[in-house]
Amino acid sequence: MDKESIRELVEKIVKNTLQTAKQVPIAASNRHIHLSPEHVERLFGKGYQLTKLKSLSQPNQFAAKETVSLIGPKGKIQNVRVLGPARGSTQVEVSLFDGFTLGVKPPIRNSGDIKGSESITIQGPRRQITIKEGLICAARHIHMHTVDAEAFDVSDGDLVQVKVAGARGVIFSNVLIRVSPKYKLEMHIDLDEANAANIKNGQLGEIVAIESRNKVSGE
Amino acid sequence: MDKESIRELVEKIVKNTLQTAKQVPIAASNRHIHLSPEHVERLFGKGYQLTKLKSLSQPNQFAAKETVSLIGPKGKIQNVRVLGPARGSTQVEVSLFDGFTLGVKPPIRNSGDIKGSESITIQGPRRQITIKEGLICAARHIHMHTVDAEAFDVSDGDLVQVKVAGARGVIFSNVLIRVSPKYKLEMHIDLDEANAANIKNGQLGEIVAIESRNKVSGE
Repeated sequence: MDKESIRELVEKIVKNTLQTAKQVPIAASNRHIHLSPEHVERLFGKGYQLTKLKSLSQPNQFAAKETVSLIGPKGKIQNVRVLGPARGSTQVEVSLFDGFTLGVKPPIRNSGDIKGSESITIQGPRRQITIKEGLICAARHIHMHTVDAEAFDVSDGDLVQVKVAGARGVIFSNVLIRVSPKYKLEMHIDLDEANAANIKNGQLGEIVAIESRNKVSGE
Repeated sequence: MDKESIRELVEKIVKNTLQTAKQVPIAASNRHIHLSPEHVERLFGKGYQLTKLKSLSQPNQFAAKETVSLIGPKGKIQNVRVLGPARGSTQVEVSLFDGFTLGVKPPIRNSGDIKGSESITIQGPRRQITIKEGLICAARHIHMHTVDAEAFDVSDGDLVQVKVAGARGVIFSNVLIRVSPKYKLEMHIDLDEANAANIKNGQLGEIVAIESRNKVSGE
């Protein structure tokens, strides 16, 4: 074989390998809350700092020892885990099932997009506060490193289909791609979605189609 | 046009209409219980008869006024609806989420297939009983009339894919087809599945693929 043929063969093998390996570990997120620094103090006391219980898969993110209760017009959910570190705005992420328990209707939103979302009362050890907006049901998404995005031929903001095998197999539509050099490859779904497909944490899903390219950041 | 051309055209239109109309209304089932006549008496008292609250979509089936509680090693779920009429074996249908609440692991099974399924304690107004098996998480399925089956070109026991549109769209795999001249066209899923796709009762799903033909009754 000449050099050119070898180069072509290697390229083909690499391309095929990448194309057949569009697999993503899946993690199911239970209900949780991100608190603004101000709300940490109001719920837990002046000068209070969250304490780390364990690290999460995304860099610098941690599950805190602290928990709160959520109170809606129809019910209360206790022991809701606080995630740290404290950040800009308070955001509460629950499943639609939790919404029924609480008697509220969380809109399905991407993380950070809380404008006009649902109100909820949060009870901490020091006092309870009611946020006018901030309760959402997180839209399914995949965190991935820039290198993964290149290998998978996707860009930040793209929507893809992810197939999960098994007796309760499903193909999830409209899965948002989020790319950053700080991210670790992982698909995040909520407990309703995990149960619907009987997914165990760490199980692999496969990106089987790109449904729409992000017009801004896509090529 | 001659007769033959008209016949061909009509056939083509009918075929296309049927092919583009593989739509099925979806109903989400909340947790419920079917009781054997013996268990009705043990839970509610000797000679007790279930009373109809409202008819269900499948002929002769009804939601009863009666409810029971389910008690597992980790928790209790109250107000679980009894469905009537009483039938052969007691079968309790819950979601996987309910399984976590109760602390049990219901296997995903077709209705009636309860051998070796999960144990659960059922509390009625007269006493509580523990069944050794009978707790399942119902596998998703489509009830359809013989006429629908013909139009959709499927047979009892086939497995199909059903697509649900929307922001939280999914394609459900392994949806079991159940055909009977007594059935009314309807897809049954549980609340986890309904929430995962944000499905409202009566929303339409579309059969987009036949995954496997039942070797026994299929052609």
